[in-house]
Amino acid sequence: MYKVVLDVMGGDFAPSSTLEGAKEALKTFPELYLYLVGKKSVLKSWENEERVKVYYTEEVVEMDELPGEALRKKKSASIFKGLELVKNGEAQAFVSAGNSGAIVAGSIFILGRLKGVRRPAIATLLPTLKDHFVLIDAGANVDCKPIDLFQFGIMGSIFFQIICKKNDPPKIGLLSIGEEIGKGNTLVKKAHELFLKSNLNYIGNIEGREIYFGNADVVVCDGFIGNVCLKLSEGLAEAIIQMVKKEVKKSFISLLGIALAEKALKNFKKKADWREYGGAPLLGVKGNVIIGHGRSDALAIKNAIKQAINFIKTDLVEKLASAIKESSKRV
Amino acid sequence: MYKVVLDVMGGDFAPSSTLEGAKEALKTFPELYLYLVGKKSVLKSWENEERVKVYYTEEVVEMDELPGEALRKKKSASIFKGLELVKNGEAQAFVSAGNSGAIVAGSIFILGRLKGVRRPAIATLLPTLKDHFVLIDAGANVDCKPIDLFQFGIMGSIFFQIICKKNDPPKIGLLSIGEEIGKGNTLVKKAHELFLKSNLNYIGNIEGREIYFGNADVVVCDGFIGNVCLKLSEGLAEAIIQMVKKEVKKSFISLLGIALAEKALKNFKKKADWREYGGAPLLGVKGNVIIGHGRSDALAIKNAIKQAINFIKTDLVEKLASAIKESSKRV
Repeated sequence: MYKVVLDVMGGDFAPSSTLEGAKEALKTFPELYLYLVGKKSVLKSWENEERVKVYYTEEVVEMDELPGEALRKKKSASIFKGLELVKNGEAQAFVSAGNSGAIVAGSIFILGRLKGVRRPAIATLLPTLKDHFVLIDAGANVDCKPIDLFQFGIMGSIFFQIICKKNDPPKIGLLSIGEEIGKGNTLVKKAHELFLKSNLNYIGNIEGREIYFGNADVVVCDGFIGNVCLKLSEGLAEAIIQMVKKEVKKSFISLLGIALAEKALKNFKKKADWREYGGAPLLGVKGNVIIGHGRSDALAIKNAIKQAINFIKTDLVEKLASAIKESSKRV
Repeated sequence: MYKVVLDVMGGDFAPSSTLEGAKEALKTFPELYLYLVGKKSVLKSWENEERVKVYYTEEVVEMDELPGEALRKKKSASIFKGLELVKNGEAQAFVSAGNSGAIVAGSIFILGRLKGVRRPAIATLLPTLKDHFVLIDAGANVDCKPIDLFQFGIMGSIFFQIICKKNDPPKIGLLSIGEEIGKGNTLVKKAHELFLKSNLNYIGNIEGREIYFGNADVVVCDGFIGNVCLKLSEGLAEAIIQMVKKEVKKSFISLLGIALAEKALKNFKKKADWREYGGAPLLGVKGNVIIGHGRSDALAIKNAIKQAINFIKTDLVEKLASAIKESSKRV
């Protein structure tokens, strides 16, 4: 049995999206056991479901609430109550599409950091022309030190290997403004030195231009830039699709043409769709934590649970712990 | 007469791109007087051209050379010699698609900064679904202080007004990871305080998702993030177009369909094409400096010269100087 906690209150479309996602996941994964945390009014009818245990709480962290404040004032909110189930060993993974800042803060406070990890980070899988790459940190840490970026590289590599089922050491690139050594800001230049001393498959700086062409498997940056890049990519992709559609409609005279073009755009969108990956793990804490996109629908929730099962199966946390331990001998 | 210096040695495709661009510009703009700086072998045949003056130098800053080193060792390189023509008043603007770091360093060293400006910055015009926006700083300063970001906002606004011919105060957004006040890294939070005290049309934080939808006219960030965003946008746009093309080819059976789709993509590309804007000005130095894209072709060079003329006509530098002076009374 894979025991996964789902915060049914988290996300812009919760609880309908989370409950629907839970139903789908239970149907699809026969070895799944779900712990649902949320309001009684929402979960009452789930009490006697098979492979389900419900935990009631009336407190919920709002999407725009300040994480530190939520942690102080709403100790029994669904996010924190769910994380405690992982902390005390009852469950093996936690999934929420709620306030990501609160999930990060709660995970660090309740689960604790893995030994040697200074800053846990969010790893996001993104599409490339060839395959996928991992962007880390996607938003957990807005101000970072060089050692943080280095540890993000280590953790991102482990995650990439598990997700993409590859044994070759992943190519790690440091997001910067030029490929030449010596280009970058102070933070990047110092992190570069740390990577050089490691035994990781470090390929040096990678420019923004290159990341979607699959030149690196793991792209390392601080969480401020990572989050800006992530959101910018989402927005730009959407803007481009809208512009192309407009152009297509302008020049195509036949309805057939429009239909075909729309199909092409849909196929592309599917490849770039974060819902297919379900969510982004927070790496570096003592437990499996998957942060879903705020706009998660049932499919995204189901896939986030699928990821949780995958992390339990593959011992992600143990692998991260030993990689960090190993690295601390070198730098 | 508008007197513009062109560094004919600058750019990946120079000197053929620059010479072709110069020819086109002279044809198109009858009031243009061009100062061409470059190797004798390249410029010999231009000696007796009308509305042209040639300056010979055998030194050239390579595209990957370190700016500081170039400035020390190659004092008479085409970039620096060209800037001196602006410094001594012979010409009114400088255009180069060469090593941008060397252009920035040379401009600061030779022309000097406008009074009150701590860090000159590169302003880039980018397309949105509605119109355009200015991204500033696009790469001149990798490590910034809050006051720098504030000044970028002031200078970016003046540039936007001139380019987009609008009199309304431009909407200035601070690139960050959430729209709520209090979100961002230390730098952004402190810059936010400065903007609040100003009389600029400051709209607060803007997320990466929003910038291509035209919600802000001026997007302010440090030069490291700005450059990463710029390159990432270029790369992603290219990747998406490749992916869509692939999909279109998969699903379209008729050649007609492919041709129509390609036309649509071409129209879109034109809108997003930096060559249409020609180059990005370095704002905050005592003179008009336009930095062309390294991959500039003749069209891009011609349009960069067009921009230079526009800046001379509209007294860009004087406007920047007085805006900075005005702002220093407030913060």
